[in-house]
Amino acid sequence: MARTAPRHLTDDELATVDRYWRAANYLAVGQIYLTGNPLLTEPLRPEHVKPRLLGHWGTSPGLNLVYAHLNRVIRARDLDAIHITGPGHGGPATLACCWLDGSYSDVHPDIPRDGEGMRRLFRQFSFPGGVPSHVAPQTPGSIHEGGELGYSLSHAYGAAFDNPGLLVAAIVGDGEAETGPLATGWHGNKFLDPVHDGAVLPVLHLNGYKIANPAVLARLDDGELDHLLRGYGHEPRYVGGDDPAAVHDALAAALDDCLDRIAQIQRAARGGDSSGRPRWPMIVLRTPKGWTGPAEVDGKPVENTWRAHQVPLSRVRDNPEHLAQLEAWLRSYRPEELFDERGRPVAGLLGQVPHGDRRLGSNPHANGGRLLRALPVPDVRRYAVEVPEPGGTLHEPTKILGEVLRDVMDATADRRDFRLFGPDETASNRLSAVFRASGKNWQEHRLATDEDLSRDGRVVEMLSEHNCQGWLEGYLLTGRHGLFASYEAFIHIVTSMANQHAKWLQVSRELPWRMPVSSLNYLLTSHVWRQDHNGFSHQDPGFIDHIVNKDPATIRVYLPPDTNCLLAVAAETLDTRDLINVVAAGKQPTFDWLGIEDAVNHVERGVSVWDWAGTDTGREPQVVLAAAGDVPTMEIMAAASLLRAHLPDLAVRVVNVVDLMRLMPRESHPRGLSDASFDALFTTSAPVIFAYHGYPWLIHRLTYSRHNHGNLHVRGYKERGTTTTPFDMVVLNDMDRYRLVMDVIDRTPSLASRAIAVRQAMEEKRNKHRAYVREHGEDMPEVRDWSWANPLG
Amino acid sequence: MARTAPRHLTDDELATVDRYWRAANYLAVGQIYLTGNPLLTEPLRPEHVKPRLLGHWGTSPGLNLVYAHLNRVIRARDLDAIHITGPGHGGPATLACCWLDGSYSDVHPDIPRDGEGMRRLFRQFSFPGGVPSHVAPQTPGSIHEGGELGYSLSHAYGAAFDNPGLLVAAIVGDGEAETGPLATGWHGNKFLDPVHDGAVLPVLHLNGYKIANPAVLARLDDGELDHLLRGYGHEPRYVGGDDPAAVHDALAAALDDCLDRIAQIQRAARGGDSSGRPRWPMIVLRTPKGWTGPAEVDGKPVENTWRAHQVPLSRVRDNPEHLAQLEAWLRSYRPEELFDERGRPVAGLLGQVPHGDRRLGSNPHANGGRLLRALPVPDVRRYAVEVPEPGGTLHEPTKILGEVLRDVMDATADRRDFRLFGPDETASNRLSAVFRASGKNWQEHRLATDEDLSRDGRVVEMLSEHNCQGWLEGYLLTGRHGLFASYEAFIHIVTSMANQHAKWLQVSRELPWRMPVSSLNYLLTSHVWRQDHNGFSHQDPGFIDHIVNKDPATIRVYLPPDTNCLLAVAAETLDTRDLINVVAAGKQPTFDWLGIEDAVNHVERGVSVWDWAGTDTGREPQVVLAAAGDVPTMEIMAAASLLRAHLPDLAVRVVNVVDLMRLMPRESHPRGLSDASFDALFTTSAPVIFAYHGYPWLIHRLTYSRHNHGNLHVRGYKERGTTTTPFDMVVLNDMDRYRLVMDVIDRTPSLASRAIAVRQAMEEKRNKHRAYVREHGEDMPEVRDWSWANPLG
Repeated sequence: MARTAPRHLTDDELATVDRYWRAANYLAVGQIYLTGNPLLTEPLRPEHVKPRLLGHWGTSPGLNLVYAHLNRVIRARDLDAIHITGPGHGGPATLACCWLDGSYSDVHPDIPRDGEGMRRLFRQFSFPGGVPSHVAPQTPGSIHEGGELGYSLSHAYGAAFDNPGLLVAAIVGDGEAETGPLATGWHGNKFLDPVHDGAVLPVLHLNGYKIANPAVLARLDDGELDHLLRGYGHEPRYVGGDDPAAVHDALAAALDDCLDRIAQIQRAARGGDSSGRPRWPMIVLRTPKGWTGPAEVDGKPVENTWRAHQVPLSRVRDNPEHLAQLEAWLRSYRPEELFDERGRPVAGLLGQVPHGDRRLGSNPHANGGRLLRALPVPDVRRYAVEVPEPGGTLHEPTKILGEVLRDVMDATADRRDFRLFGPDETASNRLSAVFRASGKNWQEHRLATDEDLSRDGRVVEMLSEHNCQGWLEGYLLTGRHGLFASYEAFIHIVTSMANQHAKWLQVSRELPWRMPVSSLNYLLTSHVWRQDHNGFSHQDPGFIDHIVNKDPATIRVYLPPDTNCLLAVAAETLDTRDLINVVAAGKQPTFDWLGIEDAVNHVERGVSVWDWAGTDTGREPQVVLAAAGDVPTMEIMAAASLLRAHLPDLAVRVVNVVDLMRLMPRESHPRGLSDASFDALFTTSAPVIFAYHGYPWLIHRLTYSRHNHGNLHVRGYKERGTTTTPFDMVVLNDMDRYRLVMDVIDRTPSLASRAIAVRQAMEEKRNKHRAYVREHGEDMPEVRDWSWANPLG
Repeated sequence: MARTAPRHLTDDELATVDRYWRAANYLAVGQIYLTGNPLLTEPLRPEHVKPRLLGHWGTSPGLNLVYAHLNRVIRARDLDAIHITGPGHGGPATLACCWLDGSYSDVHPDIPRDGEGMRRLFRQFSFPGGVPSHVAPQTPGSIHEGGELGYSLSHAYGAAFDNPGLLVAAIVGDGEAETGPLATGWHGNKFLDPVHDGAVLPVLHLNGYKIANPAVLARLDDGELDHLLRGYGHEPRYVGGDDPAAVHDALAAALDDCLDRIAQIQRAARGGDSSGRPRWPMIVLRTPKGWTGPAEVDGKPVENTWRAHQVPLSRVRDNPEHLAQLEAWLRSYRPEELFDERGRPVAGLLGQVPHGDRRLGSNPHANGGRLLRALPVPDVRRYAVEVPEPGGTLHEPTKILGEVLRDVMDATADRRDFRLFGPDETASNRLSAVFRASGKNWQEHRLATDEDLSRDGRVVEMLSEHNCQGWLEGYLLTGRHGLFASYEAFIHIVTSMANQHAKWLQVSRELPWRMPVSSLNYLLTSHVWRQDHNGFSHQDPGFIDHIVNKDPATIRVYLPPDTNCLLAVAAETLDTRDLINVVAAGKQPTFDWLGIEDAVNHVERGVSVWDWAGTDTGREPQVVLAAAGDVPTMEIMAAASLLRAHLPDLAVRVVNVVDLMRLMPRESHPRGLSDASFDALFTTSAPVIFAYHGYPWLIHRLTYSRHNHGNLHVRGYKERGTTTTPFDMVVLNDMDRYRLVMDVIDRTPSLASRAIAVRQAMEEKRNKHRAYVREHGEDMPEVRDWSWANPLG
């Protein structure tokens, strides 16, 4: 390892960092290949090699390099730092590094830092019953799954928000950099307050190749790349090469330079300089893919090509040449200089490793539950709306919820551990009350016409659902609380991210050392039934269908029928742990059905009979009217009042479902109702006319094994929509009150003859509606003015 | 309108373009507000105003401005051009412009270009039974829905690919520009071949505000913005201001400059200059939001603020001041100078409007079915694999499919109307045969180690599912064909885009003037069961659940059990129209079950009894074993062979489902089986053990109304996974052959006593597997070596 000028590191520092890097590379290769002979104490034989070779070598040496150098600066500067590994496929690297620094053995005592531990570390990697090939919850120090790519920067910014002492080093792969979420992830720096937030240090790792192609950013000419990164708001530092000593020195210098600059920015801002959004430093690291691996295999170049992406030598067990190449490769790291005879790292190797919780594998921010404090959710009864009689008053549910959120914001003003994220819709979603407690975060210059913007705001709005989701995930996984409010239809944009977060929570729950984190709360509003004005593209309730495919222990879905129920749902969900809570609630004036105590009880039970709304008191119901969702509840209630007026003898039971998961069998979901409870609510033989917020077949999917499933008839959104009126939306989808009454008549044979006229009257109402709405462009007065308390309709 | 130097337009040109713009603005306001008195021939009264005011004014004047100026250059240069309206919320603008140029009345003859037509144009906007408030399929000249934001650039590049004579002007809103998909959409220029492709001209419209916030890009300082756009690979031209004459002149000059530069780039490239990827020109247009609208309303500034986003005057019917302001606003455009007494545009207004199909509202590329040619799909029998006996041979299905795609590529080499899109996975998905017919598109410099890259390649790979999807959509909607191959789990990334495309197709189908386009074909491979090596983050079969929520007439889902069936599915789907075809098929060696003729018949029927695999010949089955998907089929076949060996008297029927939608009732899906056909396959009383590729409850959701549903027992992926072996994946999810045999025993009471030993043997096999796989890291020999032809297991 020849030195070249300029020299930033002393010889000793250089030797230490290089030794760590070599050790980490050795351990990465070992994990991919070896099941025995971890220290190469004997010649490598086929039986030392795993039968299935799985893992990603290509990115690993770069990840190891960054880790080694982060160690040095963390220790030298006593930094509080975590790292986010965008190229999380390089699981062998991260695992190698945290085994080396001891943090791995701290949480996995069965894998000690010695020869036997090394053997187990190798063997368990990508092995049944072992650990995944990518960075995962099982990896200490990580808050970022390897696998799906694109979220490293949004996770990094989320972690840095409200963590003024924290440095988040985010390694961005050049593959990941091509994704949309990452491409807008750079703009996180537009929302980073140098006073109240920590710093994000992006390290763009250009190793040139993806699975089978060059990477786009790696092939840009230097000028264009520099434009791009400055355009993203950064001052880039460039480090590159394939001579380890030179790269070590340059990377160390660049890191120190960046950290000095970050300290300077923060010092200035915290000292009162408000001269505008800083241009944060970043590093571009250009090193060969699969660096230090085999240069050629079977006559084809491998190092510094896409062929280095996964397992460079693929036939080690049955190809002696591959076996010899592997042994030579492993020995090229000179393991005898790195580990003592008992397989422990030699003393000089660990000279730059930080201590205790400063280690990247042990920093409590990356196991956020360790730092989590209970969220001060006020007693929601204080915000309750008066309900003198059911259906006699109207409130905008999200508007009232906004008052609760305002007070949560207020109560966390000093702690700064609660944020509200949304894509430019907080006001549109009628949550504006929060602005009285916190502005909207904005680091750019402001104009006189702007409202509610502030540099330290904890409401974060950017027209990127990906950033909102990624920021919230990063915020939660580092031990804070938050809520993501979105138009229901467009939450689909982050379907895949929700997927990955659910998987993360599911796996984390099984790891005793991972402390529970605050739940990811979605408020889906401007929902399918109230996108009459925006039209078909804004109408989609299918996120619920997606989320209920995930681990039942992780997911909850709430459909509060009114304002007080939304308050009760907020009370139940906001300070929970390790869940994904999906709450779909309207922002438009909605009838109040329940007083707050009833609402709290209703939410606690999840499903209730609304006795006061039915006509089955003291007798078996002949038909059950069930609803889940605010608009479905209104239509069911209107149908119930029509039935009461037109068929007063019919014994109608009204059931409301606020906690959707209760419909699932108890064996399938921890909140599921027992069959006995389900039967008690829905009977075993009466027809059930069920109006549901979303796609109707979801209710069948949840209830197919129930005794009365054969009598269940579900109405919901069936992908019919356009720009029209609210009532026309329910008519288009056959979920309107008139149709529901017709459904009751059609499913209750005993009614047949005496109900013919009623059925015909309902059909005429629907026709009258169609004509009226097309002439007047608004709903019929009898629909607009209808209420349960005064049922004109 | 004062002129300022420099003057690019003559006075006459300026007057004409301004007159068009004023007329379009007038018509946009009219659509938002008026239901009568369209020409203001009498004083405005409340009853002339719509009861519900819906629409987006803020972006409309900018969209009108660009449209007016595009008209001028299209006519002056006889350009073949379409436009993509990123801020598609500005429906009133696009509708106004194509009503003005006559293209609207061409396809909607009930809305003529006269006073009565204007009244109807106004009235129908955002009105029940009318047209949506956003740009939509109903809007002539559009291939891009307004609503969800982010896809304007990917749609634009998709439209430009292989359309060397086409100019695609893409207006990007500053709201949209914050999204991830748009942020990576800029990189489309890295894949635009100046020889074989057309040009994309991005117009970044910075009007400063979103719904309620400033826009991020609009507040960057000039230098940073310029860096960003140059970093995206563009040479930006800047136009801005609020003086119409000056902006007209500057925009005209910038447009001419850009078009000259584009022509120069194309001329050079087509003349043989291959000096590298060109830096394409673009325009940054900075004009006030809601320009020319009310400056203030109720004492608050509106023009040039976020308050101009939707309806600036909201209480026109009951607030006389608002009414007066609206009238003044409308009259500010001087309609009497724009329209004659019969409401027709005055002659001078249309002086720059192109003729016939050159009009933006009439260009056939934006109604791509007009240009579509049948895809030359070869007879797939030519690629069939020999199947001497079922289950005796193995092939990699996608590898064989790759040969078909290669020949489709070849057959379209001159026509250039077929492309394959994928996120860096074409080789990984074993479709590499296509590279023999077309390289992977790459405009950047190449290195010696690169393989299969070419400037004119029609395989397009970028690590952005958003771009792949958007490019394919743009390509299809302009009348070409294509396929998107993706890892199954990560297709969730474009869930929301698939949503919008399904809605587009659904609505288009009802418009007689929209000609059918080629279907969007997904090949989902590297699927859930074969992501044992990549682990839990890569395991998710839920895209199917999502897509089946969409309009049944639009969607098809295929699960070919083997190579020949995949070929037959390709034959059935590749040249269809107006559908979304989802095909999930493996890339790993898969048993061949059917010869090609049987495969074609099987796919044609969608569901078949595999007589040869069952033991129910000549008798009623006691149990039905059903499978959908390649791995489920293998496990079902293995279970059938176990049953044949251990319980030879049991009458087992084996059913295979290749076309999932057949399971739906005929009334719910055009491909659904009648109840009689379903009963004939699945019986009305025998237990059905169903192994399904995805989440098991989807099968219940599809079949809940079938007679035998109560006896249906479904196994599938239930969100259990990690990095492990293939067989361990099915064991973890209880879909393995042993578990299926146990299921049969558990559900067939008549077997009870004589099957106890068999059940126990199966349980032991599972336990043996668990121990074996954890010891050896690979599957038991009896699983690895099992085949139907030689059932050792």
